[in-house]
This record gives sequence, C-alpha cells and structure tokens, in this order.
Amino acid sequence: MEVLAWRENALVLLDQTQLPFRVEHVVCRTPEEVARALAEMRIRGAPAIGVAAAYGMALAAFTYSGAGDLGEHLEAAATTLKGARPTAVNLERAVDAQLSFYRRELAGRPLAEVRERLLERAQELARREKERDARIAAWGEALVPDGARVLTYCNTGALATGGTGTALGVIRRAHKAGKRIHVYVPETRPVLQGARLTAWELQNLGIPFTLVTDNTCGYLFAAGKVDLVLVGADRIAANGDFANKIGTSVLAVLARHYRRPFYVAAPVSSFDPTLATGSEIPIELRSPEEVRFLSGTPVTLPECPVLNPAFDVTPGELVTSFITDRGVVRPPFTPEFCREEE
Amino acid sequence: MEVLAWRENALVLLDQTQLPFRVEHVVCRTPEEVARALAEMRIRGAPAIGVAAAYGMALAAFTYSGAGDLGEHLEAAATTLKGARPTAVNLERAVDAQLSFYRRELAGRPLAEVRERLLERAQELARREKERDARIAAWGEALVPDGARVLTYCNTGALATGGTGTALGVIRRAHKAGKRIHVYVPETRPVLQGARLTAWELQNLGIPFTLVTDNTCGYLFAAGKVDLVLVGADRIAANGDFANKIGTSVLAVLARHYRRPFYVAAPVSSFDPTLATGSEIPIELRSPEEVRFLSGTPVTLPECPVLNPAFDVTPGELVTSFITDRGVVRPPFTPEFCREEE
Repeated sequence: MEVLAWRENALVLLDQTQLPFRVEHVVCRTPEEVARALAEMRIRGAPAIGVAAAYGMALAAFTYSGAGDLGEHLEAAATTLKGARPTAVNLERAVDAQLSFYRRELAGRPLAEVRERLLERAQELARREKERDARIAAWGEALVPDGARVLTYCNTGALATGGTGTALGVIRRAHKAGKRIHVYVPETRPVLQGARLTAWELQNLGIPFTLVTDNTCGYLFAAGKVDLVLVGADRIAANGDFANKIGTSVLAVLARHYRRPFYVAAPVSSFDPTLATGSEIPIELRSPEEVRFLSGTPVTLPECPVLNPAFDVTPGELVTSFITDRGVVRPPFTPEFCREEE
Repeated sequence: MEVLAWRENALVLLDQTQLPFRVEHVVCRTPEEVARALAEMRIRGAPAIGVAAAYGMALAAFTYSGAGDLGEHLEAAATTLKGARPTAVNLERAVDAQLSFYRRELAGRPLAEVRERLLERAQELARREKERDARIAAWGEALVPDGARVLTYCNTGALATGGTGTALGVIRRAHKAGKRIHVYVPETRPVLQGARLTAWELQNLGIPFTLVTDNTCGYLFAAGKVDLVLVGADRIAANGDFANKIGTSVLAVLARHYRRPFYVAAPVSSFDPTLATGSEIPIELRSPEEVRFLSGTPVTLPECPVLNPAFDVTPGELVTSFITDRGVVRPPFTPEFCREEE
C-alpha cells in the first residue's frame, strides 16, 4: 500500500475518502491540487499532511513557468498549502522548511536544480517520517503489556503517516512481537476514520479489533475492557496540551476518571514549542454538511444548525506520557527537543 | 403530533425510524406487532415504550379467539412484549401491571369487559405519563437559569413519552417561560435520535439549538459552552445508578470533570427500586448492522466486528439530582417513592 508517491512530475495519493469501499488515487500536479486534496481529506493524518505539503512545494517549482519571481511563486504556494488545514503543525513546518531551504540554498540557482532539490527534500521528509514511526513503535511497544485491550482513536496507521503509523504503529509492533492485543476502534464521526480506515488497516494486518460508536467508550471503560488508551496528535504545545481529532479529550477525561494510562504517540514534527499552551492552537471548523450527510444520505434536517470542529485540545495534565521518536517523554517540550534533523 | 393512539381496535404509532424525512404510521393489531415495532425502535423512549406495551396487552385480549385459557394467552403476550427490549423498566412495569390487574379484577369476567378494562387501563397510563411530564417540567424549570446553554442527549421529547417529554419537557417549559435557552444536541449514534428526532422537535418548537457529533461534547465543555446537562433515563436503580442511551455516562463523567450540574429527568415509572445498583440492569446488545450501516449506506467493512450496546449505566454519584414527577430528589429510592398511583 503506497499512501503517497511521486510519479512523473506528480504527487499520487491513495484517496482516503473512498476507503475501504474503493481503492482510488488522486493525481496532484500543482500545489493548488495538493491543497484541495488536503482540504477534502483525501489525504489526512498529521505526518502524511506534512509530507504531502512538502511535495506540494516541490510541485510549485515544477509548475513555475518562468514568468515572475520564483521566490514569490513559492511563497504564494506556501500560503495556499498552509491555508488548506490549520491545525496539524506538520503542514506549516514542512512548508516553511521547504521555503527557508529555498531561500538559504537555492535562490538564484537554475530552475532544474531548484526542482530537483525541493523534490529530494520532500522525499527526505517522507523517509524521515517512516524512520520516526519505527522509533515510536520501538519505544511504545514496551508500554503495551501482553493481553492488553487498547482503545485507540481516529486513524494513526500507515494511512496517516506513510510509514507504519504512530499510535497504530505501536499496536502493530506489539502484535508482531507476539503480544495478544485487542483493539477497540471508535468509528470517529463525522468522517469515520476509525470505521473506514483503522478497521481496514487492522483487518489487513490481522490484528483483532472491535468497532464501536464513539459514545460507547464510557461503557468500555466502565466494563473494564480498556487497559490503556493510545492516540496520535496533530499539534503538541510546549506544556503538553495537544490537538487531535475531535473526541480525543473525551477519552482522556474518561481515562483519568477510570484510572487508565493515556498515551500520545507522535513524531517530533507534530510538536510546536512556539505555543506555550493548547489554547493557542488554531482549531479547524469544518462544513456542517459533513455532519448533516453521510455518503450523500441525510442524517438530519436539511438546514440543521451544526457546530463541526475537526479537533479538540486535550490538557497535557491528562496525558500519562508522550511516545516520540526521541523516547517516552513528559512536558515541558523545548525548541531543542522539537528541532528536526538536518 | 400524536405519537401513539388507539384507532379501531389497533395501536397506531408514528414511525420514529422514518423521521424527520417521512411522517409515516405503523398499525399494530396484535401484541406480536407491538413487540416488533418496539424491537425495531419504531416507537422508543422509556415512557412511550411502557404505554405501547400496555396497549399491547389490551390487544392480546382483543385478538383472543376464545380458544384456550385467556389468562395463559395474556401471559404469553406479556412474555413476547417483555422480550422486545430489556432495559427500560417501564416496559415490564406496564406489562406486569396489566397482567396483575387482569388476575386481580378481570379473571372470569366476560371477554368484552376484559377488553374494555385493559384498554381503559392502557389509556389511563398514557394519560398519567402526560401528567407526569407536566409535573417533571414544573419541578425542573426552576433548575434552568435564563440564558442557560443546555446539553441534552438522545430524544426525551414528545416522541419519547407521548406527553411533552422528560428532559426536553423541562427545556420546553423553560423556553415557554421566556428564558433564553440554547440546546446542544448530540446526534446520538448509531440510531441518531438526536439528529433525527430531537433536532426535529426543537425546530418545530422554535427552540434554538445546535447539532453536534457525540464526540464534540468534550470540546463544548472545555469551551465553556455547557451550563448544565439534562438527560432522561430508561431504568433507575435504588442507589441512583441509571441506564440511559449509550454515551450518557460519558456526559456524566465530563460534567463531573468540568464541574457542571448533571440532571436526570424521569417519571416514577422509570424507577426500579428492586435493583440495588446499576450493575443489575440488563443492557440490550443490538445488531452490528445498526453500526455498520447508516440508512442502508455502509460505513465500514461488511463483516466488521462490532459491539453495539444500546445503553450504558451512569453511577448515581455523578448525578446532581433527579427531576421526577414527585419533586427533585436524590437516592436512595424506596419502593414507596416509586409506587405508581392506582
């Protein structure tokens, strides 16, 4: 399964809005097409969003016609890409890294070289996220006991990173190590990443799981069916507050109430030490139609008033620990800890 | 809007599985047809379930052919009706009340009289539930301040009781009293009673509301958008533990964490003092198909393993108080408190 790949001057994405019913691909030849695919969640998951955006910046160079200033052309692409989805910090980090790389090393160089170097840089980020997944899985596996019933959320697997995944990568590695794991998968309304993507990945991997509606999680805790919670993150502030798929904070409050460990698995690229607390994280509000309809079928009144935040912020104090590619850690998170490899 | 009515020797139900898209009715001429309508949730809501079941017992007398013993015929109908849905105590209370009424006062009487008296008794229960709703609303209104943002759950309105509703009846009365109320309505997966029924009732009543996915409730509390929680109940044990729509316990844990009052509105007919604690309440497990499909549209893999409990149990210690037709009260609940009027 290739989540995203570079093919003949284009970024080819596995269309995650069609899974698990159809395996289709989206071909993006411009940064605008990448931005649209991101906004439509054809590709999602913080690390994969970052990688796709880095390729989007390369596409900006590939589509540069020679008219006007290349630097300004890249800046316009950066603005378009960063506007696609505001919450996952991976997007702005990846875009800004490409832009500063251009300014620092490529400005004034021949166009062919700029293209090649920006593309290499995107491929390098894709490779690095895969390595980070492997390290997260290695650190995290020790926290998952044999026989553990793990509650996860949304999708944090291969589809979310292009590697083996963050939280799901930990589960996958524990399963591979021979531990008998059972995963509870909340469907994750409104876009159903749990029901559509995580269920599909777990089935393909042969890892036992049970799908539940999101509101069944209280029942699971009360029935003693949850040994630990393992989720991903879209942006982690310096104090450990973090944004993740809407509903994550509910699981953290439940875990605290029922005294179960609550772990966040995320690569260094999802940390944002420039924000002191989670209250500064921009939360994306998405269209009411996402809640009003399900695959074109209405679930409520046509003009029903809807509030549809795509993320919520979980207080860092509810997190047992953060499983990162640099170890199992606790806040505060310094800029040094969060700095990416060059 | 007539939720259920007796018409020409039949019970006519507003089909709640079709709302708000189609206003259709189901005609039940036998106890078996009532049991099927209950199991398929064409009528639902603990008080309405009880009333429908009482009519179902009357239908048993109306369909009695004269062959065999009438008492045994009624007992068989009682078993069928009680098997339709196990959690709401209103069902077994209503059925047992009809059966013991027959044994006590009607055994050996002419069939026409048995029919008439069992029908009157069902109509009397319907009338009493309407009166109880009015008293619940009167007691509860005082707990809802002007300007309150109220988080409710599932559907507890006219559709759930045949009257003005329990929790929604309180909201309705506060609105009618001129208080500026805003209601947050979780969609209530998998059957979407919030999105389909509560949104429809609130729109018809002109009460401002916002629909959210169930997992958005953590966001609402954290954003300070919830002043109080007001839900119904399907069965309340002596110690205040209560069963209600799956996800209710999540709202109670959130309300405790964010220090907001959590009220349960229910008539005396939903209390079961024979159970010491909530652990004794039978929890209905419903079909995986309810989660796998939404209005015929698949939301996951065809054979996806699913756990689909229709209810969860909220510990009584998380309830601020119970708004009943006999006042605003706290456990323990004695058999005397729960006894129905004769």
